[in-house]
Amino acid sequence: MSETKCVYLFREGNATMKGLLGGKGANLCEMTNIGLPVPAGFTITTESCNEYSKTGEWPAGLWEQTLSALADVEKDMGKKLGDAANPLLISVRSGAKFSMPGMMDTVLNLGLNEETLKGIVAATGNERFAYDAYRRFLMMFSDIVLSEDFPKLKKHSFEVIFDKLKEQKGAKVDTEVDAEGLKKLCEQYKVYFKEAAGRDFPTDPKEQLKLAITAVFKSWNNERAVIYRNRERIAHDLGTAVNIQAMVFGNMGDDCGTGVAFTRNAATGDNKLFGEFLKNAQGEDVVAGVRTPEPIDQLENEFPDIYNEFAAIAQRLEDHYREMQDIEFTIEKGRLFILQCRAGKRTGVAAVKIAVEMVGEGRITKEEALTRVPPEALEQLLNPRIKNTGNAKPIATGMNAGPGGASGKVALDSKTAIAMAAAGDTVILVRKETNPDDLGGMLASKGVLTQLGGRTSHAALVARQYGIPTICGCGALKIDDAARSFTVNGVTVKEGEVVTIDGTLGLVYNVELGTEPATMTGDFGTFMGWADEYRKLGVRANADTPEHAADAIKLGGEGIGLCRTEHMFLGSERVPFVRNMILAENETVRDEALAKLLPMQRADFVGIFKVMGGRPVTVRLIDPPLHEFLPGLVELEVEVCKMECANPNDPALAEKKKLLAAVHDMHEQNPMLGLRGCRLSIYFPGIVKMQVAAIIGAACEVKKSGMDVHPEIMIPLISTVNELTYIKAQLEEVAKATMAAEGVEVDYMFGTMIEIPRAALTADEIAKEAQFFSFGTNDLTQMGYGISRDDAGKFLPLYIEKQIFKNDPTETIDQKGIGRLMQICVEDARKVNPTIKLGICGEHGGEPDSVKFCHKLGLNYVSCSPRRIPVARLAAAQAVIEEMGKGVQRDK
Amino acid sequence: MSETKCVYLFREGNATMKGLLGGKGANLCEMTNIGLPVPAGFTITTESCNEYSKTGEWPAGLWEQTLSALADVEKDMGKKLGDAANPLLISVRSGAKFSMPGMMDTVLNLGLNEETLKGIVAATGNERFAYDAYRRFLMMFSDIVLSEDFPKLKKHSFEVIFDKLKEQKGAKVDTEVDAEGLKKLCEQYKVYFKEAAGRDFPTDPKEQLKLAITAVFKSWNNERAVIYRNRERIAHDLGTAVNIQAMVFGNMGDDCGTGVAFTRNAATGDNKLFGEFLKNAQGEDVVAGVRTPEPIDQLENEFPDIYNEFAAIAQRLEDHYREMQDIEFTIEKGRLFILQCRAGKRTGVAAVKIAVEMVGEGRITKEEALTRVPPEALEQLLNPRIKNTGNAKPIATGMNAGPGGASGKVALDSKTAIAMAAAGDTVILVRKETNPDDLGGMLASKGVLTQLGGRTSHAALVARQYGIPTICGCGALKIDDAARSFTVNGVTVKEGEVVTIDGTLGLVYNVELGTEPATMTGDFGTFMGWADEYRKLGVRANADTPEHAADAIKLGGEGIGLCRTEHMFLGSERVPFVRNMILAENETVRDEALAKLLPMQRADFVGIFKVMGGRPVTVRLIDPPLHEFLPGLVELEVEVCKMECANPNDPALAEKKKLLAAVHDMHEQNPMLGLRGCRLSIYFPGIVKMQVAAIIGAACEVKKSGMDVHPEIMIPLISTVNELTYIKAQLEEVAKATMAAEGVEVDYMFGTMIEIPRAALTADEIAKEAQFFSFGTNDLTQMGYGISRDDAGKFLPLYIEKQIFKNDPTETIDQKGIGRLMQICVEDARKVNPTIKLGICGEHGGEPDSVKFCHKLGLNYVSCSPRRIPVARLAAAQAVIEEMGKGVQRDK
Repeated sequence: MSETKCVYLFREGNATMKGLLGGKGANLCEMTNIGLPVPAGFTITTESCNEYSKTGEWPAGLWEQTLSALADVEKDMGKKLGDAANPLLISVRSGAKFSMPGMMDTVLNLGLNEETLKGIVAATGNERFAYDAYRRFLMMFSDIVLSEDFPKLKKHSFEVIFDKLKEQKGAKVDTEVDAEGLKKLCEQYKVYFKEAAGRDFPTDPKEQLKLAITAVFKSWNNERAVIYRNRERIAHDLGTAVNIQAMVFGNMGDDCGTGVAFTRNAATGDNKLFGEFLKNAQGEDVVAGVRTPEPIDQLENEFPDIYNEFAAIAQRLEDHYREMQDIEFTIEKGRLFILQCRAGKRTGVAAVKIAVEMVGEGRITKEEALTRVPPEALEQLLNPRIKNTGNAKPIATGMNAGPGGASGKVALDSKTAIAMAAAGDTVILVRKETNPDDLGGMLASKGVLTQLGGRTSHAALVARQYGIPTICGCGALKIDDAARSFTVNGVTVKEGEVVTIDGTLGLVYNVELGTEPATMTGDFGTFMGWADEYRKLGVRANADTPEHAADAIKLGGEGIGLCRTEHMFLGSERVPFVRNMILAENETVRDEALAKLLPMQRADFVGIFKVMGGRPVTVRLIDPPLHEFLPGLVELEVEVCKMECANPNDPALAEKKKLLAAVHDMHEQNPMLGLRGCRLSIYFPGIVKMQVAAIIGAACEVKKSGMDVHPEIMIPLISTVNELTYIKAQLEEVAKATMAAEGVEVDYMFGTMIEIPRAALTADEIAKEAQFFSFGTNDLTQMGYGISRDDAGKFLPLYIEKQIFKNDPTETIDQKGIGRLMQICVEDARKVNPTIKLGICGEHGGEPDSVKFCHKLGLNYVSCSPRRIPVARLAAAQAVIEEMGKGVQRDK
Repeated sequence: MSETKCVYLFREGNATMKGLLGGKGANLCEMTNIGLPVPAGFTITTESCNEYSKTGEWPAGLWEQTLSALADVEKDMGKKLGDAANPLLISVRSGAKFSMPGMMDTVLNLGLNEETLKGIVAATGNERFAYDAYRRFLMMFSDIVLSEDFPKLKKHSFEVIFDKLKEQKGAKVDTEVDAEGLKKLCEQYKVYFKEAAGRDFPTDPKEQLKLAITAVFKSWNNERAVIYRNRERIAHDLGTAVNIQAMVFGNMGDDCGTGVAFTRNAATGDNKLFGEFLKNAQGEDVVAGVRTPEPIDQLENEFPDIYNEFAAIAQRLEDHYREMQDIEFTIEKGRLFILQCRAGKRTGVAAVKIAVEMVGEGRITKEEALTRVPPEALEQLLNPRIKNTGNAKPIATGMNAGPGGASGKVALDSKTAIAMAAAGDTVILVRKETNPDDLGGMLASKGVLTQLGGRTSHAALVARQYGIPTICGCGALKIDDAARSFTVNGVTVKEGEVVTIDGTLGLVYNVELGTEPATMTGDFGTFMGWADEYRKLGVRANADTPEHAADAIKLGGEGIGLCRTEHMFLGSERVPFVRNMILAENETVRDEALAKLLPMQRADFVGIFKVMGGRPVTVRLIDPPLHEFLPGLVELEVEVCKMECANPNDPALAEKKKLLAAVHDMHEQNPMLGLRGCRLSIYFPGIVKMQVAAIIGAACEVKKSGMDVHPEIMIPLISTVNELTYIKAQLEEVAKATMAAEGVEVDYMFGTMIEIPRAALTADEIAKEAQFFSFGTNDLTQMGYGISRDDAGKFLPLYIEKQIFKNDPTETIDQKGIGRLMQICVEDARKVNPTIKLGICGEHGGEPDSVKFCHKLGLNYVSCSPRRIPVARLAAAQAVIEEMGKGVQRDK
């Protein structure tokens, strides 16, 4: 049996081998092969790392292959590892398939010991440089390779020693310490090492190498790497490669330097070299922020030849990869080395501009352009962003539920928020959680912060629906209602004090920060046009008002996939009638209240239908339990108790107690699984009859005004076809009677939401009675998983952290379980009703992976918040291109 | 095209044609064919009724076929319908496939008019008899055939007229009115009819016949028939047959009479003629309760020859049908006629005795015996029953949630119930609904009555678990806490007053009624032994204590399928530690509390394992959310408010407020979908680690004492395999450490409940990590249907009434939807883990149709309340026999 190849010399690999050699390794190979000045080296495969992760042992033959590759590098460089006369120093770096910047370990200057040090001094004639490299190596190796076993070897202890020495020497910064000082420091480091580890610092370079490789393997599973992969949804079984490369030095003098540059501007997308350069420095100095680098232009000024050489290489790399590149380079004594290249990270704005321009330049196809922009990035194009120019420290983090940012004065309840906004303040509403009662307060606020709830909590839904920057699930937040303040991580903020919410990043600040407005360039339109050429899925909006409908159309919405009607029961002029309707003691009072609401709701629909101009509008009949329109039980109990305490003869008490009795009667243990949706309509058909009269009446009115109109009436929470048959019969009657009274026929449909698992499982029956289905994946996920999103705040973060849930199923569709329900439903429904229209209107409808899944399922459309429409359009196009096998795999 | 045959003469049909001719019709045919004295007649098919129900029209040719059959009857009887000289009178009776006693319509004495009346007088020489028949006919025909169109023709109006006449005549009862009076009454009836209907009473006998047949067709869908079918789960598309038969009269004098008899005692099963007889009367007099019938023995005394003839016929019918018969007969002028026979309804006790004896008599096979007893009937054998000898009127009805009956004093809360019971009272607990806090109160009570909740509500679960007679969902009940009373249907009952609960029938009385104790005869053992010979499904018990475990074994349980551990956190000596554990501010306090609970719970398990003597015991780790062990939020808020009001400086206030804050923090919107089950264990593993230490420790102890023990540890609420993998690893460690400490190995398993839809859908993953699955169909149904059983009280009754749900899915497994999930789960699980043990532990495990479904699915066992074990054993046997095609179809 032949041994597995574990090691690839740079000349043996190429850019397609990212899975095996990691992104860095594959690109080093590619650059070597196209003749760029890359220091010699080789790469140990990710498979070797995986083998180590599994068994705790190196794969057979790895060490021998490493030594053989090392010999090759030694030959190439004309130096030898551990050779006192002509020593080779090497770097040992991690490098995974997907970039995980700073998450794993790197050891530089490996090969140094008392002997080789002399060789370095001799070769460079620079003793200070040599001891500087040595002291860095002693510290770095101890910290990275050995501190897991010997915690005293952490970097910090070495820094303390250095600080003490600097104090003795009267030096303020490292560079003020001379060679003698650094030499003494190295001695002190070695003494400390022996004390901490109980052995001498390893002087054998091959032992150093062996230990360093193992340390890089281990670093794949260090805590911060695992957390990063969870956040970025990178698989945990990929492993890291290990790149071993001859060291070059940017810190040997003023003819040296180091830098990083992008071939185009990563923030704006402008086609101009963009980056930073630092003279006489190593890359780590840039990363550590010890010195501030200069713009890349400075390289042009100081080293015009090298700049030109670099610019040509940059251009060549972009030509070669047909992608904007992020390039690390070092200048050692006037000679340019390229240390790394990779696809450059960029903002959404830049991504779109670069993609469009590269198509114009003939570099890439439209398919490639479309697959290169992450759909989520498009949302950035629509949002003002927080500008944290002063590097303010956040006081807390939470879930980035509603993108965008805002600064404003804290209000701790909706009433206060409304009052403060009315008085002209910019308000940030801070609540334990929000409920429909808070809608007014949320709309009056520029940002919302809650302690509980996830990305699909009430607050988050409203946030995205109305574009309010929002942070949810900020668990550390404690609101003290009595003191009118909140405390988070030790910081107390009083109502009325200013905070800033960065809903894009999920950060909270207790200072005011500025914002930058959204820019919507012409490239954006071009790009979205291409997406529309490819996609097969329709894209509709979840929109409840004419304003949102207008937003939806602006962003490319082809209809409304979910018009919630709950808000049509809110507002100060409607609430009294709604209460009368709910609390009515007889039919007359109830019918009177409904009669008052009818013209108001009809006007609502007229407004929406007119804006949508003939595009289909799916209206969901009332869904929430009626008690949501009444005060909460706990609040009311306490209110009654306090009134009784203050004055038992208070004449208002009787009325209040009557209300309390009604609220008690309607109280539910598990309202999500209670009297709502079609159950409510069957129990009490008056409301939905009024709603259908309003919808069809509005449609008739709009049609008579000369416009086209296509209402699709959606009956929610169906669990059995019989519910649909039963209530549809009554509503069809109302529709017909309304059209007869208006004297005009309109084209309408009845359909249902598939949001209860049983509905999906019995689609073969339900589809016979419905003209359309819309997957309500929010509830389908909650019921299918048995998880209430409002109550998941305590365990969901833990589940994500522990990888029990690979992804948050309320965020992206769980394809294995909930997706199986959807698949069963689609197949069974189309079997009995081949022309049934199938869509999705859960929050997942705007999440790229879910949109792609919907494409695979063969749905007709997805529907999402207006702001997610571009995201959905692009994801839908990518789904088609991926199916064609024409896309490019994006670096994560 | 030949015309469909709509009409069968009695000699043309037979007993197998119940579907087409109805039960009554088929048996009349059968009796005619074996030569019994049945008055001539014919049957119109159920298909004709269905055609009428669908189209509102009679099938083509029905009338012609009816006239032709009538001619045959006329020939047979030597009389003619409408012949003034020798008139034939006929009855028109409904008769469906399954008996629906009194639900549909019947018209007697049809054919009477002024002309034929004369013929009757001449033929009988009894003018009073003739006018009595006529006045009955006028009223009955008006009421049944025509009152739907003319509401004034309801029976009541005619009774008012008769009462007025009786008053004028000074008569107290009908029989005191002479022929002249009845003649006058008939005249008055006809005048009233013309006034009410605007036409003369129909005198043409053929018109009468046509109208009567249509009325019987319509009566299939009258409200009470629909409700009855819903309750008895009879399909609504069967239709009724119409039986037209020559009248015979039991009220022509003292040589006449009528009666009903069973071939065996319907209450006890004794093999002795059992029934009632009434001289000189028609059947309707018996039904109306105008006169009290005498026992059948009286017939033997008065008419020994006829008695002997009847006894011989009865014996012959039982021989013929090989089944206990319910026979109606009439004696007309000394001549015996058999009017109907059918399988006799009987109590559970009688059913078992008759089945066993008939096998002994060689009449039927064991298979037949087993399929003749409805499994539910067995539960009656275990219960004391209410003895309503005085015919007390119930004041309310509700769901018969817990069988058995009890009388006692009303207590309106658990504290009062406990206090009253302690003082020696027998208590009936009356609550709006119950929750785990009420367990003590329920256990102190002999019966429970609630306003809300269905058959699987908390109250019902506890009721069956602990055998407490219980009525749930008594919607009419209103509790007035302030007045310490409840009101139902206008009757107010104060706390402390006596009520009686008949939990078997769901009836509430405001008087004390006696009970009769359970009788468990030797036949019961024989019968259950036969069931065990056939069944393939194992039957286990849901049992939480040694007492219940002992009950389970007594009733044939082969193990415990669900040992809930929640109660192990209750009880006055444990609650303080449980509270400490929940409210602990640091790990030390928490661990101390858990350490206190460990030996108590270990002792609980030792008790159970010892009783179970080596049988498998499935222990479910803690499932409910922790807040269930704390006071309710609303109650606590009010308590704090009241304390503050009474004395703001109350030193106890601070502690109470701290508790309130904790309860607030733990409050959930939808606790069923919140932090419970394995989520709680993952969030806070201390409790389940303690539980596993207790279970395995107890098992070691029992094993060391020389007994065998097989704990099966069940982790609830799994939605993804990762949850199971994650927590199981920790629990395996505890198990191993416990065994090491005890120095003994025990045989244990880890498995999970399948109660979340996603678990069923991803069984191919979960089954790899589990040694057993147990379907928790309560939650699986609630989540799969999106229905909280606690909140379904408002719409579920309506859904059943409107046939939106054919059955209550919380009562019997919804095979179409939830069953599909189960099927997917079973198939996928066995594919990856062929030896996995599969069971069910939801309440459905004791419901016959669900048990049969579990047999079809190929589960290994069902688990149910101890009291349902015989039911499940029999249902499991019937499933096998039905599969063999050997069972008999039971008359419903």
